[in-house]
Amino acid sequence: MQIKVKLNDSNSTRVSAEALQKQLTSIFAAVGCSDRHADIAAKVLLAASVRGVDTHGVSNVVGYSRSAEDGTYTVPQKTEIINESSTTALVSACNGIGLISAYEGMEIAIDKAKSHGLGMVSIKDGHHVGMVGYYASMALDHDMIGMSMTSAVPAVRPALGGKKMLGTNPIGFAAPAGKERDFFLDMATSTVASGKIGLAHRIGAPIPAGWAVTANEGAAIIDPPNGENDSWALNPLGNTREQGSHKGYGLAVLVDIMCGVLSGGGYSASLDRGQNMTWVMAVDISRFRPVDDFKSMMDEMISELHSTPTLPGFDGVLVPGDPEADAMQDRLSRGVPVENSQYVAIKQRALELDVDVVI
Amino acid sequence: MQIKVKLNDSNSTRVSAEALQKQLTSIFAAVGCSDRHADIAAKVLLAASVRGVDTHGVSNVVGYSRSAEDGTYTVPQKTEIINESSTTALVSACNGIGLISAYEGMEIAIDKAKSHGLGMVSIKDGHHVGMVGYYASMALDHDMIGMSMTSAVPAVRPALGGKKMLGTNPIGFAAPAGKERDFFLDMATSTVASGKIGLAHRIGAPIPAGWAVTANEGAAIIDPPNGENDSWALNPLGNTREQGSHKGYGLAVLVDIMCGVLSGGGYSASLDRGQNMTWVMAVDISRFRPVDDFKSMMDEMISELHSTPTLPGFDGVLVPGDPEADAMQDRLSRGVPVENSQYVAIKQRALELDVDVVI
Repeated sequence: MQIKVKLNDSNSTRVSAEALQKQLTSIFAAVGCSDRHADIAAKVLLAASVRGVDTHGVSNVVGYSRSAEDGTYTVPQKTEIINESSTTALVSACNGIGLISAYEGMEIAIDKAKSHGLGMVSIKDGHHVGMVGYYASMALDHDMIGMSMTSAVPAVRPALGGKKMLGTNPIGFAAPAGKERDFFLDMATSTVASGKIGLAHRIGAPIPAGWAVTANEGAAIIDPPNGENDSWALNPLGNTREQGSHKGYGLAVLVDIMCGVLSGGGYSASLDRGQNMTWVMAVDISRFRPVDDFKSMMDEMISELHSTPTLPGFDGVLVPGDPEADAMQDRLSRGVPVENSQYVAIKQRALELDVDVVI
Repeated sequence: MQIKVKLNDSNSTRVSAEALQKQLTSIFAAVGCSDRHADIAAKVLLAASVRGVDTHGVSNVVGYSRSAEDGTYTVPQKTEIINESSTTALVSACNGIGLISAYEGMEIAIDKAKSHGLGMVSIKDGHHVGMVGYYASMALDHDMIGMSMTSAVPAVRPALGGKKMLGTNPIGFAAPAGKERDFFLDMATSTVASGKIGLAHRIGAPIPAGWAVTANEGAAIIDPPNGENDSWALNPLGNTREQGSHKGYGLAVLVDIMCGVLSGGGYSASLDRGQNMTWVMAVDISRFRPVDDFKSMMDEMISELHSTPTLPGFDGVLVPGDPEADAMQDRLSRGVPVENSQYVAIKQRALELDVDVVI
């Protein structure tokens, strides 16, 4: 089941990526971000919108810029290296905008991988980083493999448990292809991301059994709950014991370890709302084998996966990254559809901050 | 549902870990392994049995030693570094016994992590490595985080697809705790490991819908199929589109990329039966923060997870590594139960090779 607001000509407005980048940059700058940081934050949000991940896209500039203004986020911000070696860094996001600290964390990882083959950065004192896969994908321009993870306050129950103890703790992974599209995975370790429940509630759509359960009984929830509270929990990927809930749960803890325990920022259940720890890694492919050979084999693999016979009712087998690449192709040429109320909200936010409206 | 042969006093024999180690070492030595390699191969198989992972345990000495004898595996073997940097290595397993090449690959990763913080090794020309999590767990003795993956010939369908295109491509991950038990994850990226279907067939137990489907119709299989063929496929973790099959599928491809494409050994669908590519990583925790602080936070996290209220019908929330630690406690003190027919088979194999029977 796809729970998605289908954006169309009547409920959304197409805006060019260039105009959105300019608008978002000016808003972030108006709340105190440096020019470079404003540009980064805008770029990361725009990248999500361009890839069709609207929940993590441009509309978030409103909330992020408010948090910067009211002091929830510390802006202007720095990305402070607390401890580093040739290949590793422990970084403090210094309570800044998460998008910027994760971006700069991945820049550090890529630099280290350029010099030493691998780079790994664990980031504490952080906030929401948006679409976590973005940071993994930064490796692609450098012919590297990228990996990224981020933790959050509890939304997901452990296997066998009834109480939220883990964030949706998503994992991003990107590896470059040659002629084919790059491989790009961006997945919550829960059955679905939290945003889908909220969206289903807003649009009045039922949710399928398996996404969420009541906390005490473990009864499947069909009527999407309103807001976060302890009466319900998302299921870990796998859902039931029989279908492998210990695997989604295990991956969520893995993310907590790399993001929260390795950084010292704290695991999901110890975080305050709005706190997020992040981990990124870059791997220089050329240290293993010639990049062209790697990409050729990626092409072969991707092409074979695309040619897999489908189960009845499906058009074709996708490779992770296909939906994002399809959206990108459409949105870069025809403009990025911004849902009308969000379009208005972004413009209002610009006016509030006395910034030129350019969208 | 637990599909497991319950070993008890009538269907199995308890053998001391020491005797098993000695017996397996002598068998591996008798087929041409060096003393060091024979010891390693025995140790890895025994470790699986001690942890209760009997499918990957001591009984496999029979098959592995036959493959060494008939030339399927090249023994004596070497682990050849083809390409390396301070932090990375591309390694050829030289068609040797997989247990040994994966072990030596992880030794290389740990050495590199000692010197440079991180170590990553991708291993081609390899064979079955047994319990993949073992290699991740080798990091624990060095106060490191370990991660491991291995690929195999297709057994699992991609999301939306009907044909087997991916191995069960499991992931291992281990991180040290202080007073609590170490975190240890060892999971196939399919709903269940292949071995469970074969076991269910042998013991005549039905399997739950969601584990496997018919290739053309995608109909749930309840009657476990006999052997590997193209008429059926395992489901990726998540099972259906609605429940996140693209996530299990995406993780399986991630494993293929790190093991098969990064090493150049080939992705699942390009492998011949019996070929397995492997990837390992070691992360020196002390480069990020003091190890004791890391372990204390691991303890807190694990303790909180254990205290999660359960859903009705369950005794307590487990943390990945608990079942293995429970089995280890029992089996190291009371002996390792070896299913009777396997016990006989190991002894017969020793006699065939003119090796003293010590179990």
